[in-house]
Amino acid sequence: MSQLTNLSSAPVSAQHEQDAKDLTRILPASSKVYLQGSRPDIQVPMRAITLSDTPTGLGGEYNPPVMVYDTSGVYTDPSIQIDLNKGLPYVRETWIEERQDTQRLDNLSSEFGQQRANDIRTANIRFAHIQKPRRAKLGKNVTQMHYARQGIITPEMEYIAIRENQRQGEGVDMRQHVGENFGAKNLKEITPEFVRKEIAEGRAIIPANINHPEIEPMIIGRNFLVKINANIGNSALGSSIDEEVAKMTWATRWGADTIMDLSTGKNIHETREWIIRNSPVPIGTVPIYQALEKVDGVAENLTWEIFKDTLIEQAEQGVDYFTIHAGVLLRYVPLTANRLTGIVSRGGSIMAQWCLAHHEENFLYTHFDEICEIMKAYDISFSLGDGLRPGCIQDANDEAQFSELRTLGELTHRAWEHDVQVMIEGPGHVPMHMIKENMDLQLEVCQEAPFYTLGPLTTDIAPGYDHITSAIGAAMIGWYGTAMLCYVTPKEHLGLPNKKDVKDGIITYKIAAHAADLAKGHPGAQVRDNALSKARFEFRWDDQFNLSLDPDTARSMHDETMPKEAHKSAHFCSMCGPKFCSMKITQNVRDYAQNQNIAKLHKESDSNVEAGLEAMKTAYQEHGQKLYHKV
Amino acid sequence: MSQLTNLSSAPVSAQHEQDAKDLTRILPASSKVYLQGSRPDIQVPMRAITLSDTPTGLGGEYNPPVMVYDTSGVYTDPSIQIDLNKGLPYVRETWIEERQDTQRLDNLSSEFGQQRANDIRTANIRFAHIQKPRRAKLGKNVTQMHYARQGIITPEMEYIAIRENQRQGEGVDMRQHVGENFGAKNLKEITPEFVRKEIAEGRAIIPANINHPEIEPMIIGRNFLVKINANIGNSALGSSIDEEVAKMTWATRWGADTIMDLSTGKNIHETREWIIRNSPVPIGTVPIYQALEKVDGVAENLTWEIFKDTLIEQAEQGVDYFTIHAGVLLRYVPLTANRLTGIVSRGGSIMAQWCLAHHEENFLYTHFDEICEIMKAYDISFSLGDGLRPGCIQDANDEAQFSELRTLGELTHRAWEHDVQVMIEGPGHVPMHMIKENMDLQLEVCQEAPFYTLGPLTTDIAPGYDHITSAIGAAMIGWYGTAMLCYVTPKEHLGLPNKKDVKDGIITYKIAAHAADLAKGHPGAQVRDNALSKARFEFRWDDQFNLSLDPDTARSMHDETMPKEAHKSAHFCSMCGPKFCSMKITQNVRDYAQNQNIAKLHKESDSNVEAGLEAMKTAYQEHGQKLYHKV
Repeated sequence: MSQLTNLSSAPVSAQHEQDAKDLTRILPASSKVYLQGSRPDIQVPMRAITLSDTPTGLGGEYNPPVMVYDTSGVYTDPSIQIDLNKGLPYVRETWIEERQDTQRLDNLSSEFGQQRANDIRTANIRFAHIQKPRRAKLGKNVTQMHYARQGIITPEMEYIAIRENQRQGEGVDMRQHVGENFGAKNLKEITPEFVRKEIAEGRAIIPANINHPEIEPMIIGRNFLVKINANIGNSALGSSIDEEVAKMTWATRWGADTIMDLSTGKNIHETREWIIRNSPVPIGTVPIYQALEKVDGVAENLTWEIFKDTLIEQAEQGVDYFTIHAGVLLRYVPLTANRLTGIVSRGGSIMAQWCLAHHEENFLYTHFDEICEIMKAYDISFSLGDGLRPGCIQDANDEAQFSELRTLGELTHRAWEHDVQVMIEGPGHVPMHMIKENMDLQLEVCQEAPFYTLGPLTTDIAPGYDHITSAIGAAMIGWYGTAMLCYVTPKEHLGLPNKKDVKDGIITYKIAAHAADLAKGHPGAQVRDNALSKARFEFRWDDQFNLSLDPDTARSMHDETMPKEAHKSAHFCSMCGPKFCSMKITQNVRDYAQNQNIAKLHKESDSNVEAGLEAMKTAYQEHGQKLYHKV
Repeated sequence: MSQLTNLSSAPVSAQHEQDAKDLTRILPASSKVYLQGSRPDIQVPMRAITLSDTPTGLGGEYNPPVMVYDTSGVYTDPSIQIDLNKGLPYVRETWIEERQDTQRLDNLSSEFGQQRANDIRTANIRFAHIQKPRRAKLGKNVTQMHYARQGIITPEMEYIAIRENQRQGEGVDMRQHVGENFGAKNLKEITPEFVRKEIAEGRAIIPANINHPEIEPMIIGRNFLVKINANIGNSALGSSIDEEVAKMTWATRWGADTIMDLSTGKNIHETREWIIRNSPVPIGTVPIYQALEKVDGVAENLTWEIFKDTLIEQAEQGVDYFTIHAGVLLRYVPLTANRLTGIVSRGGSIMAQWCLAHHEENFLYTHFDEICEIMKAYDISFSLGDGLRPGCIQDANDEAQFSELRTLGELTHRAWEHDVQVMIEGPGHVPMHMIKENMDLQLEVCQEAPFYTLGPLTTDIAPGYDHITSAIGAAMIGWYGTAMLCYVTPKEHLGLPNKKDVKDGIITYKIAAHAADLAKGHPGAQVRDNALSKARFEFRWDDQFNLSLDPDTARSMHDETMPKEAHKSAHFCSMCGPKFCSMKITQNVRDYAQNQNIAKLHKESDSNVEAGLEAMKTAYQEHGQKLYHKV
């Protein structure tokens, strides 16, 4: 690790050098801004994109900077010296301590954790600065939901309220369409009290393990901005700790709101530690994957004790949410028998295999209350896994899938009795016309607990492009009310994503999530669209690139056709060429219309419009009838 | 041209060599199949994808080939010698002649056409084998709509009926979900009579100029497979005839159902000739672009006479549909004054400029009946242009846009009075929740004339990824009833697409169109999904690649992680690694369930299920409890 992770020393390889640069490079025209809350240690990061003025020829107007939600953490804060060997600063440490309901343990509570901590074979790859773990004091419940239900607004909640508002400055074009949100709340402003209420009522979660003080708090719920998750993780076929940490920072740089570490290969424990200590966003895992490794891949040898130790091991590292496949009940397994692709969820098939082998009920279901006890001692959120999700279009919305979903609804209520936060995982492969049924049933049986879906993919026939087949379904289900979208990369079904695949998946899902925010009419969602379109209309090419989700790609594609710097300010686009440009014409149409008050007139009678047009014609011909632009 | 276009001689450059290879390479495991109609000269091309058997370990079942719709023309027919210098064989020649309602002219009717034909400066780039043009005999109407209304089923209509059915062989899995099609018709089989009726009633069009006998007939209508269009064309900033012909063949190879040549640069006339003579799909143009070139880019100098000569020039080359912006009325222009991005349609702004300059009504509107007279003499279809489409989210569904749409409805009826075929162009930039309103209004005011939309893009913030922002909207509006989707490439708003961009745009739009067919429940739409998912489930990697929309990409992505040929038949995927695979487990779950008749049992009472499970458990343990796979 040391070379990549210690940026103060010289990277060894070109790849490391590139990774290191990518890690901290600030996006063009962007600066990190912190909005302060009610106390000095509430500093909410935003990215301010500075814009140029409208060219003098087109009005010379000042264009205020646009503030955008920023998931990249201090990696993009030039005032912070990044050292992956030391990990990130503790944003939440004081808040957790002030609550005085947790204690530091002298030792890890998990046997496996202790083993690994003392294993000399892994000393060379072990993260060096591991704090003693924190746990709730005896009888205490340290979940954000518990505080919320006591009427307490935590600093995390206030932080989130500020973050969700994406506070904009004077003169920003706030116009947007009235959305359709299918019964979700629509607010002008998100207040700390509103955040508290949503958490208390289970409609949103704040994944925030007390052992992950590094995170910048975020919220997942249908009344907030739609979030996206990026899966990373190595497998038996390889990929190193270096690569996984690089993927994590790369994913958050481009907009991942949470990261799931799905590692199944060796050194899962150490890989996870490195990721958590350096992650500004919540980390989720599927503990059954590691438990399976512990029994050498023989699912039927899994036991509650092994699984429980794994939960505690990961809880004390700081995992923020656990995918638990407690809804895969013995009696549902045969419902998959006639499916075209059976059980495609890895966790689902592990539990199915266990249930059949022992002909006993899923131990995650029978031990659910004990799991809740662990969750509330560290504030870990449930992500109730959909182990029976459809793996192809033909299997969508079948009896197996919906039976499991109803059980997840029952488990949601049981978790809520413990004040444990819950979200619900969803499909999968679903044709467009059957997507809404998923959302509606989930809202009904899980009482608006946040829905967290994988896509869904709207067709099976495009391996290599499943980021797109799924973005269609993801955008739609996000609009219908899904709170977080799990990205799918182009490599889905084919292989492990590399850095390019991760970025493609992230940008594609930022598009889906944002399209959903626009359709729901989330307050302020359209600001960035308005600013970018105005820049486009005014030929402010750099502003157009800088406001886009991926400035690097936008710029390089533009430069393929018009490489010269001069062209960046050219009043034409490469589609029409220098001689003629519709944007330019339109703008003149608008100028003339406005000079002649047509803008107002057109709302009045036709005869007025005629009059206005007559006047325009004259003015226009005085200008030598030139509406297009010569260069 | 000669090098690229004459494949019999050796290509000069590596690029040409590659283009030539790409042109004729047959997709893996695919063969061209012709389905014969009621007469020997009705030979409908399909692509048959051959599949391997299910591995013996998994049942050894035979998997019949899957037939897919094929737009690639004879380029992928190894029995045909391709020579771009000579152009394609005449599929429709006899059918057109048999109707005895057309005549060959001794000369081109258009002045400009004659000029170019005799211009020595362009001799070196002129297509060599141009036939004398065909036109309707005096007083004859040669449109497919006219024939349909006479009750005549043309060979084109029968050809299309066969083509739309994608006739599958024995044993193909025809299961699919009942779709939701918002009042469109749903048939088990598409008959020639049904095609005739749809054409007669204006719900579908067959773009098929009598001067384009090379095309393989296709249909555009909401009761048929959703089609996609690819735009190509050079601009003042360059790109050669070579490149445009290569883009056309490349686009049809990957699935473009029609091509629009939007050239605005020099040699438009010659470029178009090369494209049409070598295109197996209908070609559309925007004649006003070329008319504008003729007046040196000064829109206000456009005249009806210049435009009319351009229509005839292109009609006699064989253009199959014309985009005509006849709905941009003088009184609508000021309605765009308050827009964020005004008029973004190039044709729209040309006409707006003309209207304002002369303060006269749009000459395309005032001369509409004369235009119809030309259309019906060659059977050219209208694509009524949406010159006032919104160019950003903020401008969606505004007064200007919908006023124009209502006028397009009026013009649809006027065209139908001439028995001229019509489709209607649609937006543009529209947030998800406002898309359906576009479709509903179009169906109402245009009486189900086919809708042909550009996207719509569901957000403005992702230049470089607008194939994706728009595929979301395209899939949705296709589901709602849009008949053809105009692709958007990643370069939209940034530059001219290269070959890679064209392919990305095509594949992305094939996904959108297919997702729409699935959601509408189009007969047989799910066959390919079922076959691919079965192949995936059975680890038939090659079949999975070969059934995908882009076998090359699927294979190469897979090979990045597991390069060895051996892995192609490996019973695991790289996501889980060799030791554990959920697919494999599931399959065994299914095997056991089926052995124990659980498949039937689970439909009965729980107690039966219990019984079955008990039995399963025993059988299972006899098998040594191995459900996962070791390699």
